[in-house]
Amino acid sequence: MSIKFDQLSLLTDFYEFTMAYTYFKEKKHEDIAYFDMFVRTIPDNGGFLIFNGLNRLIDVIQNFKFTKKDIEFLRSSYKFEEDFLDYLLNMRLCIDIWSVEEGTPVFANEPLVTVRGNAIQAQIIETLLLICINYPTLVTTKAARIVYSAKGRAVMEFGARRAQGIDASLEGARNAVIAGCVGTSNSLAGLNYSIPVSGTIAHSYIQLHDTEYDAFLNYCKVNPTNSVLLVDTYDTLKSGVVNAIKVAHDWLIPNGYKLNAIRLDSGDLAYLSKKARIMLDEAGLQSTKIIASNSLDEYIIDDLILQDAKIDIFGVGENLVTSKSNPVLGGVYKVVAYEKDEEIIPVIKISDNITKITNPGLKNLIRFYDNESHKAIADLICLADEVIPLDTYTLFDPDYPWKKKTITNYTFKHLQVPVFVNGQLVYNRKTTMETKAYCADQMNTLWDEVKRLRNPHNYYVDLSDKLWNLKRELIDKNKKV
Amino acid sequence: MSIKFDQLSLLTDFYEFTMAYTYFKEKKHEDIAYFDMFVRTIPDNGGFLIFNGLNRLIDVIQNFKFTKKDIEFLRSSYKFEEDFLDYLLNMRLCIDIWSVEEGTPVFANEPLVTVRGNAIQAQIIETLLLICINYPTLVTTKAARIVYSAKGRAVMEFGARRAQGIDASLEGARNAVIAGCVGTSNSLAGLNYSIPVSGTIAHSYIQLHDTEYDAFLNYCKVNPTNSVLLVDTYDTLKSGVVNAIKVAHDWLIPNGYKLNAIRLDSGDLAYLSKKARIMLDEAGLQSTKIIASNSLDEYIIDDLILQDAKIDIFGVGENLVTSKSNPVLGGVYKVVAYEKDEEIIPVIKISDNITKITNPGLKNLIRFYDNESHKAIADLICLADEVIPLDTYTLFDPDYPWKKKTITNYTFKHLQVPVFVNGQLVYNRKTTMETKAYCADQMNTLWDEVKRLRNPHNYYVDLSDKLWNLKRELIDKNKKV
Repeated sequence: MSIKFDQLSLLTDFYEFTMAYTYFKEKKHEDIAYFDMFVRTIPDNGGFLIFNGLNRLIDVIQNFKFTKKDIEFLRSSYKFEEDFLDYLLNMRLCIDIWSVEEGTPVFANEPLVTVRGNAIQAQIIETLLLICINYPTLVTTKAARIVYSAKGRAVMEFGARRAQGIDASLEGARNAVIAGCVGTSNSLAGLNYSIPVSGTIAHSYIQLHDTEYDAFLNYCKVNPTNSVLLVDTYDTLKSGVVNAIKVAHDWLIPNGYKLNAIRLDSGDLAYLSKKARIMLDEAGLQSTKIIASNSLDEYIIDDLILQDAKIDIFGVGENLVTSKSNPVLGGVYKVVAYEKDEEIIPVIKISDNITKITNPGLKNLIRFYDNESHKAIADLICLADEVIPLDTYTLFDPDYPWKKKTITNYTFKHLQVPVFVNGQLVYNRKTTMETKAYCADQMNTLWDEVKRLRNPHNYYVDLSDKLWNLKRELIDKNKKV
Repeated sequence: MSIKFDQLSLLTDFYEFTMAYTYFKEKKHEDIAYFDMFVRTIPDNGGFLIFNGLNRLIDVIQNFKFTKKDIEFLRSSYKFEEDFLDYLLNMRLCIDIWSVEEGTPVFANEPLVTVRGNAIQAQIIETLLLICINYPTLVTTKAARIVYSAKGRAVMEFGARRAQGIDASLEGARNAVIAGCVGTSNSLAGLNYSIPVSGTIAHSYIQLHDTEYDAFLNYCKVNPTNSVLLVDTYDTLKSGVVNAIKVAHDWLIPNGYKLNAIRLDSGDLAYLSKKARIMLDEAGLQSTKIIASNSLDEYIIDDLILQDAKIDIFGVGENLVTSKSNPVLGGVYKVVAYEKDEEIIPVIKISDNITKITNPGLKNLIRFYDNESHKAIADLICLADEVIPLDTYTLFDPDYPWKKKTITNYTFKHLQVPVFVNGQLVYNRKTTMETKAYCADQMNTLWDEVKRLRNPHNYYVDLSDKLWNLKRELIDKNKKV
């Protein structure tokens, strides 16, 4: 048994098939529709999201085809006639996809992925597209918050054993590194994504030796350049740190090596790290680093640093890989337009909940950067046929339209890029390490106020006048339905 | 790219390799060790866990081998010498595994999986074993709570798009069904696990038609036996339910069909379902069911039923598939013994936190059932060489040893069964639907007091006198280290 990307076309909610079947029988299936994928709210009341999952989406779209086994499964439901099953068996995706690039900071309600295709094709990829984007974007965002909280100290991803499945353990490691983690404990992620991997010993290793000192000494003799000693098996300060220092002096230093680090994995990490730092310094081991782990997240790391904990490297597990404080990204995929007589007709989904009303039409997502600070000023969602002036633009807040701001001396860029044109891939994928560098660059364009963990500044995401007027028109029209 | 079970041997924390390497160089790698997998606390302050993930574990253990590519990756870390890499390349697992069966209710600190093997083999599978068990056990337990809350009404699993990755979306669906859900929306899970799948239409289908009535009518004409209509696109009571009733009378009933159900997906589900029920009944559609979805979990379902909501079927998505209220199962894998001169030497991991102290030695996990009520009375953790009397047994609470209880007229069974002997599979796997039936039977042996959502009764998990005495002895001994 295996999970292969070329056999995932059936990984979809069954209603995609009943809808596709209905379009087929209504002969509506050649009608062209447009869908946007977007996120309504940012997890953890955070100030930003980091978009991710595009490489995965490319894999599944490129390999999208129904096998005979898939068709046999659908046939066995007795819900579909043979003409439709034939259509599916022979179907090759010829959709267009525009997407934000992996590692880009984005915000609520922005169109992140836009799909144009016939009613069957644009609809049938919904579930798979959301699976590809939701978790990677969630965990990359969480990891970026954790990396931000560490204020330049290194963060390692340690969460494989607590991840929600095999795929999450691998994606979690990749996405953590994109967000700025220096590496992972996950060996297969290291191989698959060419990202740094590290690890040393667990408590069981120490327990299977007669004494902690013997365990440390033997480990260092075998791994003299990878000397990181876990010091909390019996008693961190009275036993672990003492034995680590002893092994450094008895064997590592006399043999030309040094003690790279000790690792704290329980107890009060602020107190223990400060005490351990003094003990190491007094023993002449100023270069020995202190690694800490044990259910860390951005809030605990923030508190530890506030309390002047002497921790050089944070190992973060379950809270990162599951985004424990908020384990669901509610990305949605909504129809925004269809074509009729070669015209694009915008569609709106209204709701009593005003924030759930969609932005209609085929749109562009634009980011303005200030030419002096090189910081991002605001994002603009506008209709695809709008031309953005190069010198002056007046933004307004869609929630409070009287709040206006005129900007000058800017450059802007389109955040969505073409990925598939008529089913053909037109995008060059980046490696994980390239995306990591790109993500760091992009995060540098955001003011710290937006990246703050608690009560961040609300980054401006504005609608163009034209889109705002269209939206109001369609709301009025639909309210009469 | 794909995730194949025969290529997962590298899916492990890197420290498993550095430890293995050290054992190899110390020539300790033929020493036999015993490890227990157990869970320290039950998520959501619940009264029980449902063990799951054994089939997955069997897959990965059966296929465990290092490929040349894996070895090349390890070589490229420059941390290992060639003799060790050769050893890994040629290694075939010859471990013994005992495990609880999938679908069995279990409790905190019980040995769920026990592994015997040489120091390298028993250690190196740690991460993979925990990945296999942690998420399936977590989500099965969550699903069982949700099914319990529905008090006999049907629950469907709808969470694919919000799952943490591809693997979680598939495992989530399988495990939900094992826990008692009647089916899933996930088509590939339906194919892979032979479980029931269903689905009908989304809002986008309705939006791509000129009117809601047209959308409903066309859908019913194409899918007359699968007539479930989503009624909240424009206005649930003023538009959706009215149009659904109209289509039932205009087309379904005259053509010999019926309206199977309507689906509510927003708004106040208690209010809307009661109003919709009245409207359906007054229109003569008493047999039309009401399905409700929208961020449901066990607490919301409990409240809806308390408020007499007229809901027949609950669709549960993100809160089930991610176990949102508690998305991490902290299953651990700890060394409990090793062999020396053919004797089993128990090992303990002490901690300042008393609940983190492990139960030492090779043990049995036994469940007592009352012969009259057929309900489970208590579980007993004892040493493997203990003989359990057939007529009378005195249990005591390990936390409060003065609390004793003598039981008679019982039968008991061993909850762990042999799965691998010397690397050979000796266990017959069950299908998903067989495990579902077994799980329902086992859940019936638990009193409702244990299954209660809030403040459940603490099920008795007792230690034998012999194990308790051994534990105290080892604590005293270790405290002196």
